Amino acid sequence: MNDIEIAQKNVMKPIEDIANEIGLKRTDIEPYGNFKAKINLPLDLPEKKDSKLILVTAISPTPAGEGKSTVTVGLGDAMHRLNKKVMIALREPSLGPVMGMKGGATGGGYSQVVPMEDINLHFTGDMHALTTANNTLAALIDNHIQQGNDLKIDQRRIIWKRVLDINDRALRNVVVGLGGPMQGVPREDGFDITVASELMAILCLAKDIKDLKSRINGIVVAYNYDKKPITVSDLGVTGAISLLLKDAIKPNLVQTLEHTPAVIHGGPFANIAHGCNSVLATQTALQLGDYAITEAGFGADLGAEKFLDIKTPVLGKTPDTIVIVATIRALKMHGGVSKTDLELEDVDALKVGFSNLKKHVENMQRYNIPVVVAINKFTADTNLEVQTLIDLSAEIGVSAVPADVWGQGGTGAIDLANKVIETTSEVHEFKALYEADDSAETKIEKIVKTIYGGTNVEYAPKAKQQLRQFNELGWDKLPICMAKTQYSLSDNAKLLGAPTDFTIHIREFNPKLGSQFLVALTGNVLTMPGLPKVPAANHMDIDDNGVISGLY
Amino acid sequence: MNDIEIAQKNVMKPIEDIANEIGLKRTDIEPYGNFKAKINLPLDLPEKKDSKLILVTAISPTPAGEGKSTVTVGLGDAMHRLNKKVMIALREPSLGPVMGMKGGATGGGYSQVVPMEDINLHFTGDMHALTTANNTLAALIDNHIQQGNDLKIDQRRIIWKRVLDINDRALRNVVVGLGGPMQGVPREDGFDITVASELMAILCLAKDIKDLKSRINGIVVAYNYDKKPITVSDLGVTGAISLLLKDAIKPNLVQTLEHTPAVIHGGPFANIAHGCNSVLATQTALQLGDYAITEAGFGADLGAEKFLDIKTPVLGKTPDTIVIVATIRALKMHGGVSKTDLELEDVDALKVGFSNLKKHVENMQRYNIPVVVAINKFTADTNLEVQTLIDLSAEIGVSAVPADVWGQGGTGAIDLANKVIETTSEVHEFKALYEADDSAETKIEKIVKTIYGGTNVEYAPKAKQQLRQFNELGWDKLPICMAKTQYSLSDNAKLLGAPTDFTIHIREFNPKLGSQFLVALTGNVLTMPGLPKVPAANHMDIDDNGVISGLY
Repeated sequence: MNDIEIAQKNVMKPIEDIANEIGLKRTDIEPYGNFKAKINLPLDLPEKKDSKLILVTAISPTPAGEGKSTVTVGLGDAMHRLNKKVMIALREPSLGPVMGMKGGATGGGYSQVVPMEDINLHFTGDMHALTTANNTLAALIDNHIQQGNDLKIDQRRIIWKRVLDINDRALRNVVVGLGGPMQGVPREDGFDITVASELMAILCLAKDIKDLKSRINGIVVAYNYDKKPITVSDLGVTGAISLLLKDAIKPNLVQTLEHTPAVIHGGPFANIAHGCNSVLATQTALQLGDYAITEAGFGADLGAEKFLDIKTPVLGKTPDTIVIVATIRALKMHGGVSKTDLELEDVDALKVGFSNLKKHVENMQRYNIPVVVAINKFTADTNLEVQTLIDLSAEIGVSAVPADVWGQGGTGAIDLANKVIETTSEVHEFKALYEADDSAETKIEKIVKTIYGGTNVEYAPKAKQQLRQFNELGWDKLPICMAKTQYSLSDNAKLLGAPTDFTIHIREFNPKLGSQFLVALTGNVLTMPGLPKVPAANHMDIDDNGVISGLY
Repeated sequence: MNDIEIAQKNVMKPIEDIANEIGLKRTDIEPYGNFKAKINLPLDLPEKKDSKLILVTAISPTPAGEGKSTVTVGLGDAMHRLNKKVMIALREPSLGPVMGMKGGATGGGYSQVVPMEDINLHFTGDMHALTTANNTLAALIDNHIQQGNDLKIDQRRIIWKRVLDINDRALRNVVVGLGGPMQGVPREDGFDITVASELMAILCLAKDIKDLKSRINGIVVAYNYDKKPITVSDLGVTGAISLLLKDAIKPNLVQTLEHTPAVIHGGPFANIAHGCNSVLATQTALQLGDYAITEAGFGADLGAEKFLDIKTPVLGKTPDTIVIVATIRALKMHGGVSKTDLELEDVDALKVGFSNLKKHVENMQRYNIPVVVAINKFTADTNLEVQTLIDLSAEIGVSAVPADVWGQGGTGAIDLANKVIETTSEVHEFKALYEADDSAETKIEKIVKTIYGGTNVEYAPKAKQQLRQFNELGWDKLPICMAKTQYSLSDNAKLLGAPTDFTIHIREFNPKLGSQFLVALTGNVLTMPGLPKVPAANHMDIDDNGVISGLY
């Protein structure tokens, strides 16, 4: 059976029952269909300070797959089986990749969150609300210019792009406003994917509606003819943009195949944004569970670094344990094995590829947080390979625990769960990577040298000029959100393993005054993906009774 | 109190209770929040043949307002007060106009459907699902060309446009695919508003998922280099586009301020599309009520004509009574009074402007359906004016009944309700305007001469050429969906009242093989509205507790 067939055979509990089991009253939730609900915040619950936060991250991804979401779900199910009060907190899938190459993002096999079709498609409409709010703002900007341009917005310097939750390369670079004076002012523009919208980052960092409004108010959308920033506040539409997100800001409750409660909310990409689910979702999971398991996108150099350096200061809580997911297959690819030879035992390649895992482990240990390695098992893994990985991990002081979550669900991750639970009790003190007061250059240098293992940072002329501008505007102390390929610790997707002696090239910055960070674009990171030759969409279908097939 | 304040003071019943009152089991609905629900079709109910269908339409709209939705809701509430089993069936508002000029579309005063904020904003996500499905198809078309163009699609002849549910004039005419060979093939393109998407029309005409798929399969999206049509079927993505609409196809259940059940589903504009809510919603209302009250967009020349000529053949049921909404104010504007002088009594102007109402009444009588005129009362209306309108109506054989639905809700429409109930019992036999077999030119001529009162139809060269092409392709017998200004019976918005001796100019056709009609574009009907100088968005706000203001 494939993922969707397993999910469809599963019998879900009504979402009211799941809510009830975790101590939520009927009035605390708003059902969306029978198996999804929005959680009304703030919850009227006593403060809870001793919940444990577990962050699941991974090695640098390869086409072999690492299965971070699947392990997160399986680990949660295992802890649930061990009668722990556990909450899973995941990101929402983006529909673009679902229709494109990636397929769904709800775990796999017997470790899935359900209803998988709904979560992968429109879910509770959060992405659509973000798309609408983003594009309403864009229309209001162009309309302002058309109607007299009182703010003297320079149409060559509008930085607020339109978005769609679709992989649509034809929209990367467009010209809008054509057709004559009644159709607007012609200008160059472009569309990003919705998960790259600053509004997504804001939604994921906002502590409440007040904070959401305040952040939206501060978004810089353009510069005027004097090169001074123009904000949403200047346009006077903060209220309209905020109210379009009134439901989207509420975390969504669903369940796993084994009825473990899961909060799924927010989903910025980790290569072009900060890559973690919402602060409100993580807080809710911590409030409702004794253990909250959450994940951060792509490899630990991207998602986890941003979780620790960008999200943690807002969340006010650091992880008690970091789980790094690795697969034998992926490590062999990092060791030079081609995708077609992955089924063959190759201990030597595994040893070489281990360098990638080792670097990520050391990076997380740098923050002084206990680490556990989860070996996400595939059927072709040999005992010798698994034992080698356990031994290599032990040499650098971490436990590596095999788990068969795809094939067995929670049952396959009992050992991993026990090790993680044990590890969350270790006493440790979080050690931040950089100080809030560090300059942008210093922050970037610390990320590049300490986390990526690079030797140098090179700024393109445009980036240098922007840094001078940020200094003048007082934006130079904001946290840094690196936009970098996920496939390598460097900014060159082809350098696998743990490359050294490399330079990171900062092409340009995107200042995000609403999310309150500076995005540093390295290499050529795309903010709007394209579709492959044969998109996943071509295999999808729905029968006359509404049953969906071909969604993975 | 304004509309939103009245709505917010109202105490809604849980949607489960509303469902229960109309005979729906808990498994028949999927709640979306506590006050909205999707209805799962088909319903397991005995067939019902004697329900009465009431269609609410109006005179040609003026800036003075006619209040069609408000009267529909008030009439429903009045029949509810008279202990009739009544269901209201309305269209879903489009967010673009809500943020632009029009404000909400959920009735007004004490005749509203609620929760008005949700219905006017994202509701249950139907518009967003349509936007996503529409644009996913667009991305798949451009991707097909980029990936080798096996179908030999002529990028100059792609007729599938992208859409957003936003008033965004800057997107009317765009160039996409710029930036070099990796970013797609450059071409001219444009965005329509979502309610103008063929998928919206399809959703509103589809009888079930099977019909939905079959219609989507047949959509013509482009022509190839040999000028042969390319369909969604050719692209092989019917399943993917259909499954994106799996929830959107289910009608939405809400309530009025007086707890009358209302089904709100689908919302194609009536000037550029067929302007009625979904066939499934109307059928559901007929199945659950003894009386189903529905409305059609803009004036009777647009919405009602399309209801009777396009929707009725699919629905398999014709209205038992047509209610034409008129206001004294609007008729005075049709009689030449300027907007600033509407508060002054002017019986002469009313008599002149009555010509507009008279023409609409005669048009509906042409179909052999009993007509009732609803006088939607405003405070400045004088007794003499109201009596004049009643008398003028009597002269042409119809009852005109005043109703104060804004100020009094259902109580204000008891007389109207009694007259409508009485009228639905009149024996009559529907007389179609044209035969299915008539050519496109014949159908257009019958609409123009009989309904609009015009003398002539003029086809632009492009339209003539298209008619020849349609003949060759076998599309010439499809029903006609006129795209015309709503402000006049002619295609010149400035000709108020009941103009005569005018020519209708057919500029171009949009063949819609999925919705199965030909859109005939007259004059310059915009398929993407713009925002006004001070958009409604500028007055909207949300407070720290999530309470919205400034939405009308």
